[in-house]
Amino acid sequence: MSYSELKEKVYEANMALVKAGLVVLTWGNASGVDRNQNVLAIKPSGVAYDDLRPDDMVVLSLSDGKIIEGKARPSSDTPTHLYLSQQFDSIGGIVHTHSTHGTSFAQALKDIPCLGTTHADNFYGTIPCTRPMKPEEIQSDYELNTGKVIVECFRSRNINPADVPGVLVASHAPFAWGATTEKAVENGIVLEFAAQMAMNSVAINPNISPVSQVLLDKHFLRKHGPKAYYGQGK
Amino acid sequence: MSYSELKEKVYEANMALVKAGLVVLTWGNASGVDRNQNVLAIKPSGVAYDDLRPDDMVVLSLSDGKIIEGKARPSSDTPTHLYLSQQFDSIGGIVHTHSTHGTSFAQALKDIPCLGTTHADNFYGTIPCTRPMKPEEIQSDYELNTGKVIVECFRSRNINPADVPGVLVASHAPFAWGATTEKAVENGIVLEFAAQMAMNSVAINPNISPVSQVLLDKHFLRKHGPKAYYGQGK
Amino acid sequence: MSYSELKEKVYEANMALVKAGLVVLTWGNASGVDRNQNVLAIKPSGVAYDDLRPDDMVVLSLSDGKIIEGKARPSSDTPTHLYLSQQFDSIGGIVHTHSTHGTSFAQALKDIPCLGTTHADNFYGTIPCTRPMKPEEIQSDYELNTGKVIVECFRSRNINPADVPGVLVASHAPFAWGATTEKAVENGIVLEFAAQMAMNSVAINPNISPVSQVLLDKHFLRKHGPKAYYGQGK
Amino acid sequence: MSYSELKEKVYEANMALVKAGLVVLTWGNASGVDRNQNVLAIKPSGVAYDDLRPDDMVVLSLSDGKIIEGKARPSSDTPTHLYLSQQFDSIGGIVHTHSTHGTSFAQALKDIPCLGTTHADNFYGTIPCTRPMKPEEIQSDYELNTGKVIVECFRSRNINPADVPGVLVASHAPFAWGATTEKAVENGIVLEFAAQMAMNSVAINPNISPVSQVLLDKHFLRKHGPKAYYGQGK
Repeated sequence: MSYSELKEKVYEANMALVKAGLVVLTWGNASGVDRNQNVLAIKPSGVAYDDLRPDDMVVLSLSDGKIIEGKARPSSDTPTHLYLSQQFDSIGGIVHTHSTHGTSFAQALKDIPCLGTTHADNFYGTIPCTRPMKPEEIQSDYELNTGKVIVECFRSRNINPADVPGVLVASHAPFAWGATTEKAVENGIVLEFAAQMAMNSVAINPNISPVSQVLLDKHFLRKHGPKAYYGQGK
Repeated sequence: MSYSELKEKVYEANMALVKAGLVVLTWGNASGVDRNQNVLAIKPSGVAYDDLRPDDMVVLSLSDGKIIEGKARPSSDTPTHLYLSQQFDSIGGIVHTHSTHGTSFAQALKDIPCLGTTHADNFYGTIPCTRPMKPEEIQSDYELNTGKVIVECFRSRNINPADVPGVLVASHAPFAWGATTEKAVENGIVLEFAAQMAMNSVAINPNISPVSQVLLDKHFLRKHGPKAYYGQGK
Repeated sequence: MSYSELKEKVYEANMALVKAGLVVLTWGNASGVDRNQNVLAIKPSGVAYDDLRPDDMVVLSLSDGKIIEGKARPSSDTPTHLYLSQQFDSIGGIVHTHSTHGTSFAQALKDIPCLGTTHADNFYGTIPCTRPMKPEEIQSDYELNTGKVIVECFRSRNINPADVPGVLVASHAPFAWGATTEKAVENGIVLEFAAQMAMNSVAINPNISPVSQVLLDKHFLRKHGPKAYYGQGK
Repeated sequence: MSYSELKEKVYEANMALVKAGLVVLTWGNASGVDRNQNVLAIKPSGVAYDDLRPDDMVVLSLSDGKIIEGKARPSSDTPTHLYLSQQFDSIGGIVHTHSTHGTSFAQALKDIPCLGTTHADNFYGTIPCTRPMKPEEIQSDYELNTGKVIVECFRSRNINPADVPGVLVASHAPFAWGATTEKAVENGIVLEFAAQMAMNSVAINPNISPVSQVLLDKHFLRKHGPKAYYGQGK
């Protein structure tokens, strides 16, 4: 993939977040990775979406974050995107939003429980909320440490980031990812929708439990892995 | 009705779900039945709505589900649509959505109570939520068994599917139907709206009870059956 | 005002309800009164808004409801509109909607309390919910009795319908009115918005009380009556 | 800045409130200040947004509120805007809305707690709700006294209005401000969004506490003051 193709994809992902209603003001960003070329492209910091052009995307080295191409300052969340892309091999794209209900769960310091098949189709179980960050993690290298606390969350709870492609950062907001930038956007949309419906379902029935492992297996695996039978095949 | 007319109607029903805001991503499908020709037409699986064309609809035998016309793989929910259309004679069309509030009730494993005339105009009483499916029902023939658990729900609770043209599948989402594809779409819209208002009404007054049988009779029967007086007649 | 002017105004009011998001499907109607000519014009029954034309409005005698002009059957809610317009002299127009939050309160059998100035600007205190209708009131002359139970509500609670231009019909939905069709639409919008915010405010603080009489006086009277100072005057 | 530039900016701010969905009917207004010329420009009272033109903005003396330019009567909330702009030096623009969730908190007489970084990025802590106004404050000079109760709230609670650029007026609605009209609009948007998410977060976890001072410092100060590193710099 050429840099310009990658930048186009990342631009499209950023605009798709806006179109899906997941972004208010400039609170959101999407990145994409090309592992062959060992680069990550990301939205510039604090630019209004109306003014954004594919060529504004900033291309960085995936290894050390040095800017390879682009005049603008990259998103202030770049160290989080870089660290996640370095640590989670399955990632081809990441989206970060402050989507209403996902962020409401993050602020409540609560996981999003898997209460139905809408959630299970894209997330193989609970979408975790990280532990709150420690003062020293906040005070320096905050955005890098945001990535580290996410990775810690998945490893300590033994969650595979390819199976659960999203997370809530405590007191902050969601990140979601996927094998491609398109899939990352889709997972960001599903996370928000699952959060909204989980909030409603608990209001309707405070005693509700997560779905059974059997139903979770059925829905996730009919869309993912060797036995998938959803869609038009390849 | 020619196959192409039926496919056009089913296409319109699918697009109407999107326009009504009941569908996110590709979570939804509509089918239509022509009982004279003994066929069912349905949306293909996992195709983006923007790319959908009337001619993409798949026509199947209503008796055995064999594909009669169409190149695409039919919706993965086809066995549910087929079984419901076979078992419930009054069905001319079915819609399946993951509409926000209907799905929230399904995830909460709760019926939608009839709390007002908006609900009563289209549904003659409680919209039921099925029992949770058993592990063996999920593991094989899942979509067919989804149809079976719906039919069991209506028969065991002695509900007439022509009077209550919709259901919540536990931990999953709503299905709604009608004598025509247009009526199925309308019932899908009413189900979602009734669910939203029922959730609100219970939040406002946790002690609220369903409407009286007299009010239910009045509203349902002024729109349905020989004494209907709503609309412009025929 | 000529019949055609009145029909145009009533048409505009019906379309304004749709534009304001207060109407789903065909659940809503607006009427207007010309007291000089002793007529009421109203939307036809069950016609889709997309197909509605000014000339479809039906003109009836305000005294006895006989159709004076128009080919279509008038809204099934016509007897309610007629009775309210006959009994409440201040009415120049009426809107009936199933707007989400107003209807949610009606279904909860709860008044909308006046919790802030948004409500107080247009409604001089609590928006009442009628008592539930009796079986015999539902079984015959239902729509006329709906009007009667509204009038009874205002008279028994000593509420002036010019000061509180709206009501919730128990288990049904809101009606709102005004000196003109435009004002009736505005009051229908305010009722819905006040209901939504009242529901939220009680969720945020279950112990909240209605605003003081002093604040109510200030806000209602700065927009209504001889001491009004809001807007551009006349 | 010429009067016509100021009026253009104030006009744009008023229209931006509508575009952002913060304004229903005519419940909202924006003003802007030019401290060099000692003037404040504000929306006229009760004019429909569709009919608004930049030249309709009214220019007043910042010192005594006398009209300098403009034919229309200024917003009835003008004394509040004037007093705030006189007392809070950091103000370049003010917006007043009845945005849904901000107003819901105001009606609930509750501060908006800072539960996450979305809030912390623009508001350096709790967004306060004023005390209820006293009968005599309501009965005369109501709009001026609204300004006074806001200023009292900030001074008595020792809150810097440059750090917390917004407030809820008890039983009424939000005001937000900023160094420019654009920033005032942005802060009005953030206030509404923070209110919506705070309401949700408390529903999801009633025991949630405000974010730590360390996280608050990090987010507010990365966007404000000498150590800011968000955006493209200047």
